[in-house]
Amino acid sequence: MKPRWLLAPVLLALAGIAAGMVWVDWSKGGDGSGIYSREWQPDPVQGYWDPDRFYQPVQSVEGKFPAAECIACHEALTPGIVADWRESRHSKPAARAPVACPDCHGDDHRALRMPTPKACANCHGVQHDAMQAEKHYGFPSHALAMERAVDSKHFADKPKAETTACVQCHSVATKCDSCHTRHRFDAAEARRAEACTTCHSGPPHPDDEAFYASAHGRKYLAEAAATDWSKPLKKGNYTVPTCAYCHMRNGQHVVADKSIWGFGLRQVNPQTAENRIKRERWLEVCRDCHDEETARAALVGLDRERERAWQGLHRTERLLRGLRSEQAFYPAAGERPPYPTDWMERWWPKERIGFFEGQASAFYNVSPIERDYFEMWYFANLGAYKGAAHGAPNMVEAGHARLQQAETGIASQAAELRTRTGKARPDPRPLWLEGEYTVHNRDHN
Amino acid sequence: MKPRWLLAPVLLALAGIAAGMVWVDWSKGGDGSGIYSREWQPDPVQGYWDPDRFYQPVQSVEGKFPAAECIACHEALTPGIVADWRESRHSKPAARAPVACPDCHGDDHRALRMPTPKACANCHGVQHDAMQAEKHYGFPSHALAMERAVDSKHFADKPKAETTACVQCHSVATKCDSCHTRHRFDAAEARRAEACTTCHSGPPHPDDEAFYASAHGRKYLAEAAATDWSKPLKKGNYTVPTCAYCHMRNGQHVVADKSIWGFGLRQVNPQTAENRIKRERWLEVCRDCHDEETARAALVGLDRERERAWQGLHRTERLLRGLRSEQAFYPAAGERPPYPTDWMERWWPKERIGFFEGQASAFYNVSPIERDYFEMWYFANLGAYKGAAHGAPNMVEAGHARLQQAETGIASQAAELRTRTGKARPDPRPLWLEGEYTVHNRDHN
Amino acid sequence: MKPRWLLAPVLLALAGIAAGMVWVDWSKGGDGSGIYSREWQPDPVQGYWDPDRFYQPVQSVEGKFPAAECIACHEALTPGIVADWRESRHSKPAARAPVACPDCHGDDHRALRMPTPKACANCHGVQHDAMQAEKHYGFPSHALAMERAVDSKHFADKPKAETTACVQCHSVATKCDSCHTRHRFDAAEARRAEACTTCHSGPPHPDDEAFYASAHGRKYLAEAAATDWSKPLKKGNYTVPTCAYCHMRNGQHVVADKSIWGFGLRQVNPQTAENRIKRERWLEVCRDCHDEETARAALVGLDRERERAWQGLHRTERLLRGLRSEQAFYPAAGERPPYPTDWMERWWPKERIGFFEGQASAFYNVSPIERDYFEMWYFANLGAYKGAAHGAPNMVEAGHARLQQAETGIASQAAELRTRTGKARPDPRPLWLEGEYTVHNRDHN
Repeated sequence: MKPRWLLAPVLLALAGIAAGMVWVDWSKGGDGSGIYSREWQPDPVQGYWDPDRFYQPVQSVEGKFPAAECIACHEALTPGIVADWRESRHSKPAARAPVACPDCHGDDHRALRMPTPKACANCHGVQHDAMQAEKHYGFPSHALAMERAVDSKHFADKPKAETTACVQCHSVATKCDSCHTRHRFDAAEARRAEACTTCHSGPPHPDDEAFYASAHGRKYLAEAAATDWSKPLKKGNYTVPTCAYCHMRNGQHVVADKSIWGFGLRQVNPQTAENRIKRERWLEVCRDCHDEETARAALVGLDRERERAWQGLHRTERLLRGLRSEQAFYPAAGERPPYPTDWMERWWPKERIGFFEGQASAFYNVSPIERDYFEMWYFANLGAYKGAAHGAPNMVEAGHARLQQAETGIASQAAELRTRTGKARPDPRPLWLEGEYTVHNRDHN
Repeated sequence: MKPRWLLAPVLLALAGIAAGMVWVDWSKGGDGSGIYSREWQPDPVQGYWDPDRFYQPVQSVEGKFPAAECIACHEALTPGIVADWRESRHSKPAARAPVACPDCHGDDHRALRMPTPKACANCHGVQHDAMQAEKHYGFPSHALAMERAVDSKHFADKPKAETTACVQCHSVATKCDSCHTRHRFDAAEARRAEACTTCHSGPPHPDDEAFYASAHGRKYLAEAAATDWSKPLKKGNYTVPTCAYCHMRNGQHVVADKSIWGFGLRQVNPQTAENRIKRERWLEVCRDCHDEETARAALVGLDRERERAWQGLHRTERLLRGLRSEQAFYPAAGERPPYPTDWMERWWPKERIGFFEGQASAFYNVSPIERDYFEMWYFANLGAYKGAAHGAPNMVEAGHARLQQAETGIASQAAELRTRTGKARPDPRPLWLEGEYTVHNRDHN
Repeated sequence: MKPRWLLAPVLLALAGIAAGMVWVDWSKGGDGSGIYSREWQPDPVQGYWDPDRFYQPVQSVEGKFPAAECIACHEALTPGIVADWRESRHSKPAARAPVACPDCHGDDHRALRMPTPKACANCHGVQHDAMQAEKHYGFPSHALAMERAVDSKHFADKPKAETTACVQCHSVATKCDSCHTRHRFDAAEARRAEACTTCHSGPPHPDDEAFYASAHGRKYLAEAAATDWSKPLKKGNYTVPTCAYCHMRNGQHVVADKSIWGFGLRQVNPQTAENRIKRERWLEVCRDCHDEETARAALVGLDRERERAWQGLHRTERLLRGLRSEQAFYPAAGERPPYPTDWMERWWPKERIGFFEGQASAFYNVSPIERDYFEMWYFANLGAYKGAAHGAPNMVEAGHARLQQAETGIASQAAELRTRTGKARPDPRPLWLEGEYTVHNRDHN
C-alpha cells in the first residue's frame, strides 16, 4: 500500500470534524438555544429566565430616564419593587453613589436590559468569578445549569409545558436573582435556607424536605427568627446551619467544590483520591459544630446507604437488560415512537434503559416497566440519598421502602412479561405508536 | 286535535314542578341538611361546623350572665380563649364599648349560640356582604362551600368518617373563625398565608404546598417575621406576597371574582370575554411587584401547562369511553353496588366515568381503571395546576410526571382488559357486589 | 403411674427456663445490642445514638482538662457548640457554679463520655424519673424506644442502611439531646413544635405533617415568633398549642400517660375503663382552650375515623388469610428466603401476614400483595389516623383515599392470583429465592 493512502483516514477525520463544527454552529442558529435550538420555540417567559438570549424590551414607553424619574413613575406603578430596592444596600451604599435602576437596566426604556450575571459582576466580581469557576467541576453545577439543560436531548423532546418549568430553576446560571431576590438583593436573605428551596425541592432533589426534616433544619426553624443574618457565613458567626453555611463556606460562590455524590444520579466511589480530599473539606465544615469523629461516622453512614441503594438499582437494571435481550418489553422498540431528536432511531429502533443510555428523561415513550425503573432511580433513590446526606432518618426509611417496593414490583412485571414473550400478543402499535398513547412528545415545542 | 289537549302537557309540567318542590322540601326535612338530609345523620362535631343548623347548647350550666361573669369563670376554665380575646381588638375597640362574650354568644348559658356570619355582620357588614356576593360566581366559592357540599350526591354516599373531614373545611361558609381564628379574630393573622393552609392543602388542592415551594412563598418565609401585618392589604403596604394579598386585593372578601380556572377541575378557555377581563384583574395585582410583561408571560405559561394536562386527560377519558362501549370494565356496571342515593341505578346500571358524569367522588364503587383515572384527574392534574399557577416549577414537573405515568398505566390496563373482553372471566360479583369489596358506602351515615 | 413421674415435666420446664436465661444472656453478648446482638455489627455512628454501649473516646488528645481549657481550645475548634453553651443556662445558672464541659463529659480526654440520661439525672432527676416511668405504659414510648427496637427481630433482619436511620430516632431513650438540642439544652426550644418533628414525621408517623396542616399548627406558625417560650407549659401561659403543650402537660416527661391509640398500629377499643380515664385526661388538656363539648365531639370523630379505617384493614387481612389457605400467594412460603433470624422457617416455611404475625417489617421477603397490605396499614392507615387525631382534614381525606385504593388494588390482585392457583405457573424460585430479588436481607449487618 502506498503511504499516501494512509492520509485518507486523517483527511476524512478532519473533514468530519469540520462538518461537525459547521453542523453544531448551524444547529445553534434556531429560535431556541443550545444545540437543539432549531427543535423548539421559546415561550415568552423564557425572556426572563435567559434574558441575554431572549429578553425583548417593551416598546410602549419611549425615552431615556435618570434614576429619579424611574423611581417617581414606578413608585406608583410597581411600589413593591421600589420598596424592596429602598430596603436594599443598593439604595444606600456606604461609600459611593446609590446603585439605581439605570445602572442595571440601562436608561433607554425601549432598550431595557434584564441584568445577567455579567451586569452584577461590575461590582461583585469576586462572587461572579467564583461562580463561573464552578464550570471546572462540570455538571451538576449552578454555572452550567442553563447550558447543559438546553444542550440535552430531552430538553427538545419533552413537552414545552414541562421544560418551561425546568428552565425556571436552571436560570440560576443566567441571572443572580434566583437566590438574591430582586430588588432587595439581600445577602442576609440569601444566607437563609429559604433562598435555595424553590428549586431544591420536589421528587428528584428533595433537599428542602430533607433539610427541614433533619435536626439541622429543626434548629434553623427554632432559632432563625432570633439570628442575625447580616453576618458573613464564617466559623463562629452562626450556631444555626443552613444550605449556604455548609455548601458555600465563607460565602464563596463555588458550590460544587465539595460535591462528592453530585445529585446522587450515579454511583460514586467515595474513596478516590479526589473524593477523599473533598471529604476532608466537608469535615472542615462539620467541625464548626461537631466533633470530627461524629461527622466522619455520619458520612460512613451515608456511604453505606448509597451502597445499599445502588445494589438494588444495579440488580434491577441488570434484570431490565435481560428482558431487553429476550425482546420481552411491551411495547418494544419499533412499537413506540422514536424520540424526535433521535433521527437514528427511525431506522434503528432500540430500547435504552434508564437515563444514562440516553433515553432522555424516560418519562415518555417507554414501556411501563422501564418507566417504573426510571422512577425508582430518579425519585425513590434520590429521596433516600438526600435524607441520608442531610440527616433526615425518615426520608431514608421512606426512600428505601419505595426502592424495595419498586424492585419487587419490577420483578413481578418481569415474570409476567416473560410468560408472554414469544407468544402472540395484541399488536401494541394501534395504541402506543399510531394511537395517542405513549405520546409523541413533540408538542408544539 | 282540540286546543284543550294542548293544555295537557302544560298542566302536567305544572304538576311536576309542584311535586318537585314538595319533594325537595320533604327531602330537606331529615336529620342532616341539604337535599339528601334524610340520607345521613350529623356527627356531634357538626354542631361546630354548621352551628345555625346543628349546634345544641350545653344544658349543665343555667343562668344569664353579663360579660364580666363569663370572663371571671372562663378565665379559670378556659384561659386560652380569654387570653386570645384580651389580645383582640374586640376587648378594646377604639370608640365603643368592648365586644364581649354575650354580644356574640347571647347571655343565656342554656341557649348559647355559636356565632355565624350573620352575627359578625352586625358590625362587619361590608365584609359579610362581599363574601355573600361570591354566590354570583357560583361554585367553587367560599360562600357556597357548605350548601353545595351537602347538596351533592356523594356527600350522602361517602363514609361519614370522610365527610366529617370534608365539612370541617366547607364550614368556611357557615362561620368566620375558619380564617379569623377565635377568639383573637385578628385581621393581621388572617392576612398571613397560614390562615388559608389548613384547608388549602393536600392532594386535590395543594395551594399550601405550591405557595411555599414558589419564590413567592420563599420571600414570605424569609420576611414574614419582620413584616408589619397590621397594615391593610393595599398596594405599596407590602413587599411580601400572601394568599390574601393576591386573592383578596384591598382586603375585599369576594375571593372568587378573579377566578378563571377555578380549582382546575374543568378545562377552561382562558380567552372568553369574561376570562380576559378576569386576567386583567390578575395583572393589576401582579403589577404591584412585577412588570406587566413578566406577569403576562407567566400566565401564558399557565395556559400552556393547562392545555397540555387536559390533552392527556381527554385522551384518557376517550379511552375509558371506548372501553365502556366495548363492555370491558371489570367489574362492570351491575357487578358492583349502585350508589345509595342513586335509586335509578338499581334498575339501569351504568358506568359513569370521572367526576362529571355524576359518579360521585369515584373513590368508591368503581373498577380499578376508573379509579386510576379519577386520581389522575383529581390529584396529578390539580397538583400540576397549582404548581403552575403559583410559580412552583417542581410541582409542575412532579404533576406531569404523575399524569404521564397514570396515562401509560391506564393504557396498559386497557390493553389487558381488552384481551379478556368477551371471554369467560371469573364472576366478580361474589367479591365486588355481594362480598365486602368495592364496599357499599352507606356506612351508618 | 408413680408420683415421681409427675416431677418430670416440672424439672424439664425448670431446665428450659434456665436454658432460656442462659441463651438470652449469651445472645446479648455479641457486638451489637439486644437479644439479637450477635446478628449485627454496630455502625460507627451508633456510638452517638447509644453512647452507653458503643461510644469510643478519641485517643488522639491526651490529658485531663478543667472547663476553662476545654473552652479555650474548643472555641477555636468547634465554636458552634461553645456559642450554644454560652447561650445556655448551664453557663450561667442562677445560684450555683456553671455546669461546664467536664461535668457531663468527664475531664479525661481519652476517657471522654457522651452523656446519657443518667448523667443529666444528676441535676434533672424529676424529668429523668418521669421519663423512666413511661416504661409502665409499655411500647410505643420514648423510654423503651431503643430497647424494644434492638430486641425486635426485624432490627437484625433489615439492611443496616435502614436500621442506622431507625436508631437515630430511637436514640431518644438513650440521650437527652434528641429533644434538648446540644449544647444550648434550652427548655424554651424543646417546648416548640420543631423539637419533635425530626422523628415524628414521614409516612408511618406524620405527626409533623398533621400538626402543621391543622388549625393548631396554623396558629403556632402565625404566633410562634411573638410568643414567650421561656414560660412553663402551664394552663394560661400559652395561647398557642404545640406537641409538648398537649402531650407533656405541665412539662411532665411521661408522654405515654394519655396514649389511647398509641401509634394507630392496632385497633383499640376507646371505651375500656382505662381508655375512658385517659380520654378525661385529654379533655382536661383540650379545655385549656376549647369548650369541653367541642373537644368531646372531635374525639368522637376520631373514634369513627378509626373504626372506618379498621373495617377496611380487617376486610383486607381476611382476604389475605383466605388466599393463604388457598395457597395462592406468589411467590409462596418456601419460594422466598426465610428471615435470617427466623431459623424455624428454614424447616417450616410459613407466610406471615402483616406486622403482627411476626413478619418483621414486611417490607422485605414478601410477595407483592402482602407488601401492598403492609403499606396500606403502615402508611395509608397511619396517615389518616394522624390527620384525624390532630385536626388535619386533608390528611384524613388523603389517607382514606389511599386506604380505599389499596383495598381495591388488593382485591383485584387477589382475583388474578386465584385464577392462577393450582395451574402451572413459572417457578418463582430462580427469581425470588436463588436469584437476587426479594433479597435476603442479611446485608453485612
